[in-house]
Amino acid sequence: MQVSAGQVGDMTAESAPVRPLRADQARRVADILRHQIHSGAFDAGIPGEQQLATEYSASRNTVREALALLRDEGLIDRVPKVGTRVATRKYDHGLDALLGLQETLKGHGTVRNEVRAAMHIAAPPAVARRLGLEPGERVVYLERLRYAAELPLSLDLTYLAPDIGTEVLGHDLENTDIFVLLEQISGQSLGSADLALEAVPADPHTATTLDVPGGAPLLMLERLTRLEDGRPVDLEYIRMRGDRITMRGSLTRSAPEWKVL
Amino acid sequence: MQVSAGQVGDMTAESAPVRPLRADQARRVADILRHQIHSGAFDAGIPGEQQLATEYSASRNTVREALALLRDEGLIDRVPKVGTRVATRKYDHGLDALLGLQETLKGHGTVRNEVRAAMHIAAPPAVARRLGLEPGERVVYLERLRYAAELPLSLDLTYLAPDIGTEVLGHDLENTDIFVLLEQISGQSLGSADLALEAVPADPHTATTLDVPGGAPLLMLERLTRLEDGRPVDLEYIRMRGDRITMRGSLTRSAPEWKVL
Repeated sequence: MQVSAGQVGDMTAESAPVRPLRADQARRVADILRHQIHSGAFDAGIPGEQQLATEYSASRNTVREALALLRDEGLIDRVPKVGTRVATRKYDHGLDALLGLQETLKGHGTVRNEVRAAMHIAAPPAVARRLGLEPGERVVYLERLRYAAELPLSLDLTYLAPDIGTEVLGHDLENTDIFVLLEQISGQSLGSADLALEAVPADPHTATTLDVPGGAPLLMLERLTRLEDGRPVDLEYIRMRGDRITMRGSLTRSAPEWKVL
Repeated sequence: MQVSAGQVGDMTAESAPVRPLRADQARRVADILRHQIHSGAFDAGIPGEQQLATEYSASRNTVREALALLRDEGLIDRVPKVGTRVATRKYDHGLDALLGLQETLKGHGTVRNEVRAAMHIAAPPAVARRLGLEPGERVVYLERLRYAAELPLSLDLTYLAPDIGTEVLGHDLENTDIFVLLEQISGQSLGSADLALEAVPADPHTATTLDVPGGAPLLMLERLTRLEDGRPVDLEYIRMRGDRITMRGSLTRSAPEWKVL
């Protein structure tokens, strides 16, 4: 159906007459387009500006500005004579299915790890505390730059409990998820993990390593993983390229509190 | 205990002799310090460079560089004659307890909403589809700039199903969480929600609105919330300041899959 642009500004009796700026409207359009890009709705091409303007009850200028926002995020690009198309679709990483990266991206190309460090170090006090060790006790430290489809995806800093970590060092770290090795070596399933997620700017050196501009937004995941018996064995600091990963999950409410499924 | 810097470079027989650059070491130190800042370990002040150098088996130059990284993220600042101190502690937002912002931050100061838009609009097709409506059907659109401790925290764009949304418009949107209103108006509990989390750069207009530099990292949450009976009623696009929010949660593995607690 045709929707006139005038409807966008309609007000209810209760609300103050706020007239959205074009930049506000462009943001609104961009957010919905972003979802459609991620869900694959535009894999065959992005509709023309006029069609989008009609669908969003927006002016062509607003649509153009929304597309510019998404271009600045690296999600779409403009190809002369072809039009606007999806540049990259992000990988989905499950929030409610904590899997190794390789398992997560199964079917979406190969994960390759460039191992930048694999060694014993003395645990700094804060690391020791979280892994239930004495300060200064030796832990295994890994640093891996992870590639998907031959582009850097994340930089992972990993501290492992000494017994399991020492065995991990003997395995093929270039092609194996740590989670798989932890279960294999310990003979236990993993039990639980505490997560913290933040958006942080890429410092210059990290930016170079991940091949993004300095200050680019990174999705930073700090994760402490325990074995089934409750022992914490794996503390990771994972910097994911903001333009390549979306974390997804579902929550359900079991009154009076929300629980994640 | 004293730990000599030499131990950091120790190699196991199995691993290639990788000598970390100072920038890599600074990142490692910064990550652990970041956790301590968030957990409040440094609220009384950050230890001196020499003490940190000892704890992290790093040089003072490395520690200085790590502190510079955290300063660039806005987490700490340097006060002449006082030393380095925590500038802002981030708010924790529960991933496994999906609450309204106000409920989440209870005890950490007041949440105030600046209502920038509150009106009926014609649902763009992609929004209509997710809310189970016909394209062009009218929905209620809200735009709120949310403040905590008198600083902008997030910019929330909200699409509500028309029946409930119209009633929402009659309530005090400046001081009430939408979740609370949804339950009150529908007479149902909320049922479940689908989440997607990304790190995105702030476009210039959003940056001005949230009072951050252009391109600053934002934690972007897209969330579709359903009532207990399964009907989707609330589609939100929430841009949170990366320097003010951490999302936290726990996962547990119920073999053969991971489930979030």
